[in-house]
Amino acid sequence: MGGDFAPANEVAGAVASLRQSSQEFELILVGREQEIRKELSAHDVKGLLYSVVHAEEVITMEDSPNAALKQKKNSSLAIGMTLHKDGKADAFASAGNTGAVLSASTLILGRVKGVSRPTIGAFIPSEAGVCLLVDSGTNVDCRAQHLFEFAIMGSIYAKTIFKYENPKVALLNVGEEKLKGTEVVQEAYRLLEASSVNFIGNVEGRDILKGKAQVVVCDGFVGNIILKFGESIPSFLKTRLKQYAGGSLTRKLFLGLARGSLRASLRDLDYEEFGGVPVLGVNGVSIIGHGKSTPKAIKNMILRAVEVAKSRLNQHIEDAMTEALSAHPPPDAPRYAGVH
Amino acid sequence: MGGDFAPANEVAGAVASLRQSSQEFELILVGREQEIRKELSAHDVKGLLYSVVHAEEVITMEDSPNAALKQKKNSSLAIGMTLHKDGKADAFASAGNTGAVLSASTLILGRVKGVSRPTIGAFIPSEAGVCLLVDSGTNVDCRAQHLFEFAIMGSIYAKTIFKYENPKVALLNVGEEKLKGTEVVQEAYRLLEASSVNFIGNVEGRDILKGKAQVVVCDGFVGNIILKFGESIPSFLKTRLKQYAGGSLTRKLFLGLARGSLRASLRDLDYEEFGGVPVLGVNGVSIIGHGKSTPKAIKNMILRAVEVAKSRLNQHIEDAMTEALSAHPPPDAPRYAGVH
Repeated sequence: MGGDFAPANEVAGAVASLRQSSQEFELILVGREQEIRKELSAHDVKGLLYSVVHAEEVITMEDSPNAALKQKKNSSLAIGMTLHKDGKADAFASAGNTGAVLSASTLILGRVKGVSRPTIGAFIPSEAGVCLLVDSGTNVDCRAQHLFEFAIMGSIYAKTIFKYENPKVALLNVGEEKLKGTEVVQEAYRLLEASSVNFIGNVEGRDILKGKAQVVVCDGFVGNIILKFGESIPSFLKTRLKQYAGGSLTRKLFLGLARGSLRASLRDLDYEEFGGVPVLGVNGVSIIGHGKSTPKAIKNMILRAVEVAKSRLNQHIEDAMTEALSAHPPPDAPRYAGVH
Repeated sequence: MGGDFAPANEVAGAVASLRQSSQEFELILVGREQEIRKELSAHDVKGLLYSVVHAEEVITMEDSPNAALKQKKNSSLAIGMTLHKDGKADAFASAGNTGAVLSASTLILGRVKGVSRPTIGAFIPSEAGVCLLVDSGTNVDCRAQHLFEFAIMGSIYAKTIFKYENPKVALLNVGEEKLKGTEVVQEAYRLLEASSVNFIGNVEGRDILKGKAQVVVCDGFVGNIILKFGESIPSFLKTRLKQYAGGSLTRKLFLGLARGSLRASLRDLDYEEFGGVPVLGVNGVSIIGHGKSTPKAIKNMILRAVEVAKSRLNQHIEDAMTEALSAHPPPDAPRYAGVH
């Protein structure tokens, strides 16, 4: 209910996902029942496996995440996430308030053992296939240990969901040399170097779209800015091409042709294709979609949730964290747990 | 002598700059005299105002900036910068090792009164004209006071050189609200809000190319990554368009048209047009060009140096810093200087 076009796009996408993978999963639509039923009546839902669970309240995009979770106990977010927590659903997905979904995931589902900060990654297209940028804006202030955990979780996600055999993991930095950048990234470099992650070292801003690494690790401040900068490129190109065409008819014709090619060739820059990004490091499956999700984006978000739920992703993350922590306990943890 | 194609491109660009603005300035070419004279012999230099000053040593791109400055006392960089320091030249420009030029500028010229950290900005094209991103990679670890100074210096530069009447200055952040982001940017927000800078608040990654602000302030870690990410976009688009065209002749034709339009419309994304970026906050005029500068880029870098030298930029910066410091002394400075 929290998305910008809810529940219309949510219901349309839900119906499309059930149609595409009929019998593979069952969907529970959580929100204001009357509104949802009204939207459903516009679709042919015969034979589709779904149910509706009523939730009176809605957390909006303007709500402060933590306050909203406390005040709106009957929000579709709280009720949906609790269904998942209680085992009545195997995954949760929402195109609502990102901060609220993240908070609800952490507070209601809890963290995977060994993870100090859950994170959200984002998918970036590259010349060598899709790349996971992690953190994408969740944790703006990070210590080296956090970056280290993002690298481990991102690596497992790339392996388990993207099916990259031995994903290359890199730290985003201002140069390739080990001693470049802030103290935090230098320390993270040392942690990763000594880990079992397939760490290829530092990459620079220019290496992201080149696809030098399949997992690019940074703090959420940098990740958020890079992502939003990237999102603004198509609009910038459009304006530029328009200015260039000016009043010339020939140029306008070329421009029309150019735009078609450009649009087609940039298709997977489009968030719709990915549908949603996972909250990594929480005890469950929680997928967050873009607030402006189209029905197609909602469909892909739901199918992604099904895929992640089937993957045993969290077990893999827990195993990797346990291994990493036994080899390199964080500075504030006892080095030999047995002593205590 | 330190550029990737020195001295060939340097000399070609120097000749072009003198030809374009003959009699407006005189150029001193500093470096290995024999090599420079050899390059000069390939050009028609009749009537051009130039001289050559010999410098035996060259600081390379691989040299560590500070070590190289100590060891290579007779480098073209050290000798050229000293000519400027001694008043025998009114400005210095180089396409050599950026770190070394920055160090030489700071060590040899010294800092403008009130500036704690000199900085280098970069020019970014936007839908609303050119934008100055500052810092562009010089200072990776910044305190709020540094960001505050970058904002002041960037603002003066945009006013004095870009001729923006009252340049809009913004902090690059993960959201528009005052309390977004790290503690450092929140503190910088408070400092800027209380200053005489035309501070419009936070902008996000997506607002840079939109041109919401004429001066965008960030630490060098973020600035460097954004810049390099931006530089990689044309190559990414080229690869994408190629993949899209595949074996289709029609698509290849469209692609050719698209590329032409794209290239023309993105012309000012090109560093060649800007030539070089200024080191802000040092007692002199020091312009740094791209290591791979073409003759055209060298020409523009030299003309930029002439322009900055004529502008009284540093006097404006010093005045603004004095004003800012008297209103808001940095936390580690005595609040009432008179007490001491």
